[in-house]
Amino acid sequence: MSAQASYDELVKRCKEITLLSSTSSILYWDQHTFMPAGAAAFRADQMSLLSKLVHTQFTDPKVGELISDCEQSDLVNDAVSPEAANIRELRWQYDKQTKLPADLVEEITKITTLANQHWVDARAKSDFKIFLPWLEKVIALEKKKADAYGYEGEPYNALLDDYEPGATVDDVVEVFKNLRNELVELLQKIKNAPKKPDVSIVEREYDVKLQKIFGESVAAAMGFDFNTGRLDTTTHPFCTGIGIGDTRILTRYNPNRLNDALFGTMHEAGHGLYESGIDKATHFGTPMGESVSLGIHESQSRMWENQVGRSKPFWKYFLPQAQRLFRKSLAGVSLDDFYGAINNVTPSYIRVEADEATYNLHILLRFELERALLTGDLKPADVPGEWNSRFKKYFGIEVDKDANGCLQDVHWSAGLVGYFPTYTLGNLYSACFFDKARQDMPDLDQQFERGELLNLREWLRNNIHVHGQRYRAGDLCKKVTGKPLDYKPLIDYMTAKYSEIYGF
Amino acid sequence: MSAQASYDELVKRCKEITLLSSTSSILYWDQHTFMPAGAAAFRADQMSLLSKLVHTQFTDPKVGELISDCEQSDLVNDAVSPEAANIRELRWQYDKQTKLPADLVEEITKITTLANQHWVDARAKSDFKIFLPWLEKVIALEKKKADAYGYEGEPYNALLDDYEPGATVDDVVEVFKNLRNELVELLQKIKNAPKKPDVSIVEREYDVKLQKIFGESVAAAMGFDFNTGRLDTTTHPFCTGIGIGDTRILTRYNPNRLNDALFGTMHEAGHGLYESGIDKATHFGTPMGESVSLGIHESQSRMWENQVGRSKPFWKYFLPQAQRLFRKSLAGVSLDDFYGAINNVTPSYIRVEADEATYNLHILLRFELERALLTGDLKPADVPGEWNSRFKKYFGIEVDKDANGCLQDVHWSAGLVGYFPTYTLGNLYSACFFDKARQDMPDLDQQFERGELLNLREWLRNNIHVHGQRYRAGDLCKKVTGKPLDYKPLIDYMTAKYSEIYGF
Repeated sequence: MSAQASYDELVKRCKEITLLSSTSSILYWDQHTFMPAGAAAFRADQMSLLSKLVHTQFTDPKVGELISDCEQSDLVNDAVSPEAANIRELRWQYDKQTKLPADLVEEITKITTLANQHWVDARAKSDFKIFLPWLEKVIALEKKKADAYGYEGEPYNALLDDYEPGATVDDVVEVFKNLRNELVELLQKIKNAPKKPDVSIVEREYDVKLQKIFGESVAAAMGFDFNTGRLDTTTHPFCTGIGIGDTRILTRYNPNRLNDALFGTMHEAGHGLYESGIDKATHFGTPMGESVSLGIHESQSRMWENQVGRSKPFWKYFLPQAQRLFRKSLAGVSLDDFYGAINNVTPSYIRVEADEATYNLHILLRFELERALLTGDLKPADVPGEWNSRFKKYFGIEVDKDANGCLQDVHWSAGLVGYFPTYTLGNLYSACFFDKARQDMPDLDQQFERGELLNLREWLRNNIHVHGQRYRAGDLCKKVTGKPLDYKPLIDYMTAKYSEIYGF
Repeated sequence: MSAQASYDELVKRCKEITLLSSTSSILYWDQHTFMPAGAAAFRADQMSLLSKLVHTQFTDPKVGELISDCEQSDLVNDAVSPEAANIRELRWQYDKQTKLPADLVEEITKITTLANQHWVDARAKSDFKIFLPWLEKVIALEKKKADAYGYEGEPYNALLDDYEPGATVDDVVEVFKNLRNELVELLQKIKNAPKKPDVSIVEREYDVKLQKIFGESVAAAMGFDFNTGRLDTTTHPFCTGIGIGDTRILTRYNPNRLNDALFGTMHEAGHGLYESGIDKATHFGTPMGESVSLGIHESQSRMWENQVGRSKPFWKYFLPQAQRLFRKSLAGVSLDDFYGAINNVTPSYIRVEADEATYNLHILLRFELERALLTGDLKPADVPGEWNSRFKKYFGIEVDKDANGCLQDVHWSAGLVGYFPTYTLGNLYSACFFDKARQDMPDLDQQFERGELLNLREWLRNNIHVHGQRYRAGDLCKKVTGKPLDYKPLIDYMTAKYSEIYGF
């Protein structure tokens, strides 16, 4: 078999496997929108079967042979050709998926299912004792997983690589440390600032139907295509890029706060634009038809949510529109007051409710604890104490109970150790990319002021989306911005914004 | 391998195959409810892949071997044991699916896709010439299919068996002929009757939101469980029993006619009660966990739609409820007038809009033409002439154009020859079953008058639903009613109803 024939066969198999996998995206979407409650157990069986079939098909030794055939050929000569990128990433996926012994995968599934149930109970009762034995089991299994993958340096590298392929602790630890120090300082300035925004403006009555209409109009202005996508309501918002011509976003509405659904919708629409901006018509089913990493994905959602959605130029155009819908609650509100209200900073316990400035401190705290849990420097039993002392140090407030502290997130109970840093990587990438977009389009603010968002969408599509997995995240950043990932653009952006709002 | 081990392995495989197949039910439901239009081509790819996987897994020669092992064992000694029924039906399915050569299946898929496109065009232009060459191709392929299956008597037997397993032309032709003669006579009486219902009562303004609320309340009263099911809106109403705890029905609303959604919802909820009444918790994935046939399925939907939904006792309870919702359109309407309006009989061209009395004549006409097309006694080119002359004979009206005649139905263009008779079989079975239910529960009318529908649901569940495919349709009818299928109960039921309404 020629290398080209091997490659064609490999692509054919991958397309079919991805097509099969895409059916479970529909099932997942249905599960979180319209599925009758009584169907839950059956749905779990359907999902497991699809996972098993996809895993079996992809880990077929024939797939490994086809990859090897391609690796030894001219197809990989040009490292950033679609063929070379596909072969590189398929090798990475294949090795990952074949390295974990089946009994370890089964054990992780079993334990995390139980751990999750105990976490739910522990959080409800704010009783860490209930969760502790399960956290111990999960951490032990995550160590085993890291060992099975293999790693250089510390075990955390093996896990981080699952969510942010190619990233290492060394890459991120320096940039995170600088970010943390600057953020703590920034928060101090905000705390002592002479001016305070009036957050009550966005905490009035906001009719849910009108919120939906407004959210859809903003998503449409961003270029989210409702002929190939949908916006629905769910409990925990998400975006799913199901396949060619099918990208769905989900949000939730709070009738007494404008921010949740509004920025949630822009966030998910940002993910959606990435999914639909990938050239799936050509590359569906191969890595070139997939997003780069969780961090890059998050950079797209956060840019639309924050750099665009929480900017003053954007609201110069959209505030009058919002005022025509929310006549009473936004009557007479000035642009500056509204801008202040949507950018209000208040240190608080819960990550998912955090503002743009404190959000990353929540992540950095978790990242530090995760690393220490993996190396053994931190015992699971000591998590609450360590969490609370760091929280006091970074946020300046005392954690009142573990439900508001180390028990708040689902991730550890679900075996998602190594996932958290991708949130902050996303914020960092978004600031780096946005700086470059601004350089390339110096009139971006003026465009926003006219409600024109499509040039930014095109810039993101051409510079990031269409590449699929041609470049890994770090390389993509260098390719787009000319520089490696840096914490400064994010800090500079925040400092500029908050110094204006808070007057320091 | 012991026979029991073979059986267990067979059941295990069937459960997994059915589970996989159930995922395409979700995709199908999504396609007809919420899927973005731009996803159509990708959805077709997903559906094809799932069909291919299901077909490949089920036609694996190992499945045939396992069935053979079981057939030669004591497992089949008691013909109506779950094991024997499963083995019998799996043999039937396996033989059917393995008898068709792959190239014939592919040819049928290709030709019917094109035939359907040309049928859409032909119907729009009411030009039979456009469809004729495709009808000729489809009939030729259906003959090939019948030959591949093999048959006794005429080729139609092989095709009918796809939709109504075990039924033969000889079984149904006698009962259909008697039915046709009696129906023509009944219609003549109705035509000459002194009284006429005022149909305008149900052709007023009926708010769609209120129709939905009313339809849901009726479905709930029937025992349709909204914790394990849903009601949605679509273009062509259907019901899909997706799996354990997941049965979905769909309807459509006409703001100027009450009947469409109301009886449509009861019809689909009838299908839904059958799907959810099967003991899937025990038998999911095997024939014992499946419905018997299209005819028996239709008997359930039609019984709820007609014998219940178009009965006077039912409306004695539900009309006052409807009047509280549709205050203006139903104000002052008497029970008798409403009962007349929902049972109005008017011969008309279109089958799917036909009333209860004329509906079966539409079917019988199609059945007669299909048989003749298969034997070659009727040439496709002669279909319009033959259709129109029979239509005149049965309905007493002239067909004005082929779009209102032989071009109206999708079935032939889709290769669904042999499907039509199951509609009338359903009506016949519904009347036989309902007669028996009434014997077993002599106060059924009084129950309906109190809005109590659950005893009938239980009766249907215990006598029909829980058996899955333990009995084939004809045997089930004998088991339940003590008699073979007969046309008299349906004619007697109609005669009683219409003689009261029309005063003959």
